[in-house]
Amino acid sequence: MSTLNATNIPMPREQLERVVRQVVRQQFAERLMSGEMQLSAAYSSNLVVNTSARHVHISQQDLETLFGPGSQLTVFRWLYQPGEFASEQTVSILGPRRRMIEKVRILGPTRSATQVELSYTDAISLGIDIPCRASGSLDGTPGCVLIGPEGVVEMKSGVIRAERHVHMSPADAESYGFKDRQYIRLRVQSDCATTFENVLCRVDPKVLMEVHVDTDEGNACNIVNATSVELLP
Amino acid sequence: MSTLNATNIPMPREQLERVVRQVVRQQFAERLMSGEMQLSAAYSSNLVVNTSARHVHISQQDLETLFGPGSQLTVFRWLYQPGEFASEQTVSILGPRRRMIEKVRILGPTRSATQVELSYTDAISLGIDIPCRASGSLDGTPGCVLIGPEGVVEMKSGVIRAERHVHMSPADAESYGFKDRQYIRLRVQSDCATTFENVLCRVDPKVLMEVHVDTDEGNACNIVNATSVELLP
Repeated sequence: MSTLNATNIPMPREQLERVVRQVVRQQFAERLMSGEMQLSAAYSSNLVVNTSARHVHISQQDLETLFGPGSQLTVFRWLYQPGEFASEQTVSILGPRRRMIEKVRILGPTRSATQVELSYTDAISLGIDIPCRASGSLDGTPGCVLIGPEGVVEMKSGVIRAERHVHMSPADAESYGFKDRQYIRLRVQSDCATTFENVLCRVDPKVLMEVHVDTDEGNACNIVNATSVELLP
Repeated sequence: MSTLNATNIPMPREQLERVVRQVVRQQFAERLMSGEMQLSAAYSSNLVVNTSARHVHISQQDLETLFGPGSQLTVFRWLYQPGEFASEQTVSILGPRRRMIEKVRILGPTRSATQVELSYTDAISLGIDIPCRASGSLDGTPGCVLIGPEGVVEMKSGVIRAERHVHMSPADAESYGFKDRQYIRLRVQSDCATTFENVLCRVDPKVLMEVHVDTDEGNACNIVNATSVELLP
């Protein structure tokens, strides 16, 4: 994690703990990926809800257009899901109103198709009328322009609001009684208590259990100060 | 409404209808305020939910600091509540990270205390840690800097996220069985269906029935494409 070596100021306790957790998580992910550890032991009984800020998934071809031939994504921060990371690379997103959002992070590893995930607040600001879709379901979606340090990609489609969803392993799904592609509810207890319906279950043996909401949803329910979260049928 | 005279391009049907609705609403508000019309006849049975974008309520003193001595708010657009309007005046809001949000509209008429209402998305962008409060409940809240064309106001406090709320007359409250200051729920049916809890009832004989949510909440539930909305105990 090259970013750790770049700092020479005393690290606050909170930040240090976050880094330790990341290192543990990375090792943990490697043990999971190698098969050394079983997924059934990999998650705690606490439900993890993470808020996804605007981000980009990128194809290798588009990455090279934006950052130059032979470019590779490099790790800025490991994410909760094994093998997934926020990269050091960021791009600017330009919409039809000629407004721009700068420094939007690319998540790695690269994918087969480039995809931009925005909140409705972001999309309204950019002037793009985006649909709410499951990741990868990009037919008929609007495009935008990505601007990198070495080039520009004009996406014909691929800009979406990601449908609220929960990643879970088959064991998680069985223990909750949920099925793949089922819609369930997420209740968040806070001073802005909210129940989100239409939460898509995405069952996959390679994942840790984690709910993803976007920044509109996370801020609407004050998720960072939530006192409890629960999944309901 | 001076802004209407400024345009000399053909007006789209949708926009024309909106203007007609505004003129009717204005006349309607005047008849209400004069006592010519009764509030019990003033609302339809359809529940109105409006999304409040970031805005500022201003004291006369702060208005004059920002826009010059003797300044008055002028009407840009009448709001749903009788006598309330979005003014032609806007200010910039500066936060502690030295980031700024420009062109934030002042709502009129003037009030006894200046108050800034932001979404959490706005506040995070500015770097201000704001609480969720009922309008006017400003003790211990953070401040910010307001920048106008003629001056600057350094607010010591007054920046909040407005608690979700529903304005209703005593007749509305009685017909629903709700009481002033009671917390109720708002269910929004859409492709991002959501139930908001902790919705504050504000009963006042001078208001039309209207639910107010902020842009995080409105975008989280895709309120502009909602197929139904309902209030629940």
